[in-house]
Amino acid sequence: MAQDAVAQRIYPDPPGPAARERSHGWGFADSGFAIDEQARVVFTGSRYAISGQVIPGLLPWAEGILGLSLDPRGVHPKRERPEVPERIACPALEAALAERLPPERRSTDPLVRLRHGHGHTQEDVWDTGWGHLARVPDLVVWPVDEDEIEFVVSNARLHGACLVPFGGGTNVCDALRCRPEERRTIVSLDMRRMNRVRWIDPVDRTARIEAGATGLEIEAQLAAHGFTLGHEPDSAELSTLGGWIAMNASGMKKNRYGNIEDLVLEISALTADGERLERAAAPRESVGGDPARWLIGSEGRLGVVTSAVVKVFPVPEVRRFGSVLFRDFEAGVAFLRDVERSGSKPASVRLMDNLQFQFGQALKPAKSGLAAWKSAAERAFVLQGLRFDADRMVACTLLFEGGRDEVRAQERAIYGLARRHGGMRAGTENGERGYQLTFAIAYIRDFMLEHWVIGESFETSVPWSALEAVCTNVKQRVFAEHAKRGLPGRPFISVRVTQLYETGVCLYFYLAFHYEGVDRPSAVFAEIEHAARDEILASGGSLSHHHGIGKLRAPFLPRVFSSAALDWRARQKRALDPDDLFGCGNG
Amino acid sequence: MAQDAVAQRIYPDPPGPAARERSHGWGFADSGFAIDEQARVVFTGSRYAISGQVIPGLLPWAEGILGLSLDPRGVHPKRERPEVPERIACPALEAALAERLPPERRSTDPLVRLRHGHGHTQEDVWDTGWGHLARVPDLVVWPVDEDEIEFVVSNARLHGACLVPFGGGTNVCDALRCRPEERRTIVSLDMRRMNRVRWIDPVDRTARIEAGATGLEIEAQLAAHGFTLGHEPDSAELSTLGGWIAMNASGMKKNRYGNIEDLVLEISALTADGERLERAAAPRESVGGDPARWLIGSEGRLGVVTSAVVKVFPVPEVRRFGSVLFRDFEAGVAFLRDVERSGSKPASVRLMDNLQFQFGQALKPAKSGLAAWKSAAERAFVLQGLRFDADRMVACTLLFEGGRDEVRAQERAIYGLARRHGGMRAGTENGERGYQLTFAIAYIRDFMLEHWVIGESFETSVPWSALEAVCTNVKQRVFAEHAKRGLPGRPFISVRVTQLYETGVCLYFYLAFHYEGVDRPSAVFAEIEHAARDEILASGGSLSHHHGIGKLRAPFLPRVFSSAALDWRARQKRALDPDDLFGCGNG
Repeated sequence: MAQDAVAQRIYPDPPGPAARERSHGWGFADSGFAIDEQARVVFTGSRYAISGQVIPGLLPWAEGILGLSLDPRGVHPKRERPEVPERIACPALEAALAERLPPERRSTDPLVRLRHGHGHTQEDVWDTGWGHLARVPDLVVWPVDEDEIEFVVSNARLHGACLVPFGGGTNVCDALRCRPEERRTIVSLDMRRMNRVRWIDPVDRTARIEAGATGLEIEAQLAAHGFTLGHEPDSAELSTLGGWIAMNASGMKKNRYGNIEDLVLEISALTADGERLERAAAPRESVGGDPARWLIGSEGRLGVVTSAVVKVFPVPEVRRFGSVLFRDFEAGVAFLRDVERSGSKPASVRLMDNLQFQFGQALKPAKSGLAAWKSAAERAFVLQGLRFDADRMVACTLLFEGGRDEVRAQERAIYGLARRHGGMRAGTENGERGYQLTFAIAYIRDFMLEHWVIGESFETSVPWSALEAVCTNVKQRVFAEHAKRGLPGRPFISVRVTQLYETGVCLYFYLAFHYEGVDRPSAVFAEIEHAARDEILASGGSLSHHHGIGKLRAPFLPRVFSSAALDWRARQKRALDPDDLFGCGNG
Repeated sequence: MAQDAVAQRIYPDPPGPAARERSHGWGFADSGFAIDEQARVVFTGSRYAISGQVIPGLLPWAEGILGLSLDPRGVHPKRERPEVPERIACPALEAALAERLPPERRSTDPLVRLRHGHGHTQEDVWDTGWGHLARVPDLVVWPVDEDEIEFVVSNARLHGACLVPFGGGTNVCDALRCRPEERRTIVSLDMRRMNRVRWIDPVDRTARIEAGATGLEIEAQLAAHGFTLGHEPDSAELSTLGGWIAMNASGMKKNRYGNIEDLVLEISALTADGERLERAAAPRESVGGDPARWLIGSEGRLGVVTSAVVKVFPVPEVRRFGSVLFRDFEAGVAFLRDVERSGSKPASVRLMDNLQFQFGQALKPAKSGLAAWKSAAERAFVLQGLRFDADRMVACTLLFEGGRDEVRAQERAIYGLARRHGGMRAGTENGERGYQLTFAIAYIRDFMLEHWVIGESFETSVPWSALEAVCTNVKQRVFAEHAKRGLPGRPFISVRVTQLYETGVCLYFYLAFHYEGVDRPSAVFAEIEHAARDEILASGGSLSHHHGIGKLRAPFLPRVFSSAALDWRARQKRALDPDDLFGCGNG
């Protein structure tokens, strides 16, 4: 099982230091939405296309949708210093760890502990900014290799502590929330010091990558040698390989590269006994069941993923964006169906509903001169020339990757299909903007929360036959739940199709409402989201496409698994981790 | 979880009665190699292209390769009536089962019991024909629905019996062999009465299929409504959906349709407690681990697969075979590598080495008139015109499926790549012959065994970088092992590449030798096969690509899994089936 040096292998340099993350909120510290001194919405920094720009359309548009006015100065600020619950110390364990781990790789700092006790659900963000978390890890450690993890695992066992593996901390299912009733010392095992691509095999096109490497770090190390992993979840800048495996992640370019379960050939892990789960990697196997694959989607319950062998791909010759406008959502869906059946799916195909299309327009930076003129002319052509209805039209963004001929053939096929459904090409620039906006848009929630708008996204996978029912029913249900509670204004509920499969699609909903004057807004939001999930399941959608279960969706598990299936899961957990060392309590 | 009637669904008619299987040997009773009254090799029946034909070249060619003469009349006949071990009866259980299952769906007939105690390894075939099996099931039952299986499971538990699910009985890893030390009554649960496609959803392109349906039955039921599953393992005529799942099967057309793990969306099963493992099927999910997927590759250890929801595909517009000849194996491999990288892989691509190419030629039926002339002319062109060396050239068979334009584009791309590697197109007829021969060739082992030649195939998956080393080293090792034992003549050892993956390929070896005068030929063969497996692992190949582990390869498990990984497997088994109800003892 030892990974011997192999002549052809490339050993990349380790990644440089990562950009600083915001200690308290989404993303990198240099980026985010803000109000400037002229009371205009701006996006800070220089990291994204939108960075450094004024976004004049956002608040006016949001006011129209939410049905009430938003004062850029009228903020509901986060608490200056979040509340952090008391530590449950374990001096014997801490002394033992101090013998091996240097001080800079151990922390009991309250803010550090807090950050390791949540991901990025609505509840997580609310509770860290305006509410409070009842329980967070008592100690954070940063191991640098398997031996150190083994050491931490052994000592945690010996001293009766509980271990929680931590990747990018970006999950949106309350997976990292600590159970309030957990009275053992909770150790957060932050994997991000293990962020190297250990080797690349250019002949077999495989690489062994450490579990704590983020998408940014992986792509940088691979790109230096002409390769890419191609796994690009919306969180790819911050989330890690180990987190992707534990959460059964899906990437925006899965049509070309596959989802995480398709990319991973071998997973190395440490068990609750501190033993190494390892195996030989092969292109494909039938070996009576591979225990390492139980870690895919295990959400930290079974062991610590330490590294994995993954497929890698040559950086594509061509990478080209595209976009198409359709008269309405139905036309867009019919187009997607044909794209799926065509056998020539671009790397990424995403369809935004009308509201999300409008949202994208509202996020456009202020333009001047030629750009503004061009954009007005385009708009006039679409609305007057094609008689598209601004309140019904939708947009599809495309990303083509591959060889020159391959991309050309795909474009021909795809735009041909689009024409058949009355689609109008809207250019590569809009396509790239739409695709890249995914990363910048993740910052908006923190900003809107401070402006009295609470929001969250949630996803599902649905069979083709249930696609429109799920979209319609969820929207109706959200409006009904919002009205029933007499909440201010109107809710924002919007959907996009983000992934295509032979048998269905992934749907991604965005939900938000104004909460000024609302009692317990986070809890009310959670109730409505719960109702939306109920509606998804009742209408034929699934419990999760790629966000996972965590503690957020665990109550729904009996609706998708028979009791025998849940019993098998519980038995497996007890068999592999009888003392609940990995006591995260995820579903 | 209930599968409600859905408006759009199609409910196919049940399949007609299956063709009669040979009670004692591979395949259907109407087909097989035989010696006719003129001492010529013939293939009987009318089922395959080769059926009803005289095959004059087989024995002379085999004589040349094996280095000794083969007398068509000099046979080593199977025992007329195989030895069947005594039953271990359990009158209480048998009485209980008789209350529910009619007599025609229960059997204690010795030959029926024997057939349920083996698959088709060399050892299986030898022991049933010339040796003996130490232990076989004591009772065979044929349930028709989940309720009956639940009834059998409950009663087996109650009466302390052991259950072995049985599909097509085609495994080649001693999975169905009963442990001689098993003193409980062994009940074989023959699933083949559950052979219906319950429904097809033409919108979502899914179908629920019962676990006991064979490939033939599935394709017939789907084809009646314009669909195909596209899963075509070499055993597809006889093997079942449940068996494919339990063995983690791979099909010849996996490039287009995927392997079994890609095709299955949901698996329904009965646990050792007689509980139903069920869940909602979705296009793709992240639900904290899906216990049903543990059944993939479970080899009957964990539960009884009862049905599954699978993807189905429209029957392709075009299905076209092709073939290409290359100067040598290295050129063929270089071509495969380019095909894999081209992104336009045909449904099936297989490369035979020189020996296997010769074997295919030797199996050609006798030709007369124009056909013989044409074939001689073709041969002359290849050997003299192109100066291909008859002892080095290799053949690649291709199968294209898809839309007319798609297939045309693939053909253009693939034949273009072939030319770059000096390949010569050898026509659709040779391609189809090569592909279809897969099914007929499966009958040859029984025939050759009676003519003093013992043989077996075995497979592995290898990374691209290890492909040639594995081929070369295995061949050398087999020759060395053969020589070391002073066995007669020379061994036949040949390989073909049957599956392409991004990171490597599946290799399929054929091994045979003459055994007249050899003491314990089956055991000697097993030793040499074991040595070949050792060589595969030492050279970078895997333990199995799709044949599974069973009892045959279990001794090698510690070479591919760390002890912690094996421990996890053992713990899972104990947790899910603590009394070892599914006591098949597979690795």
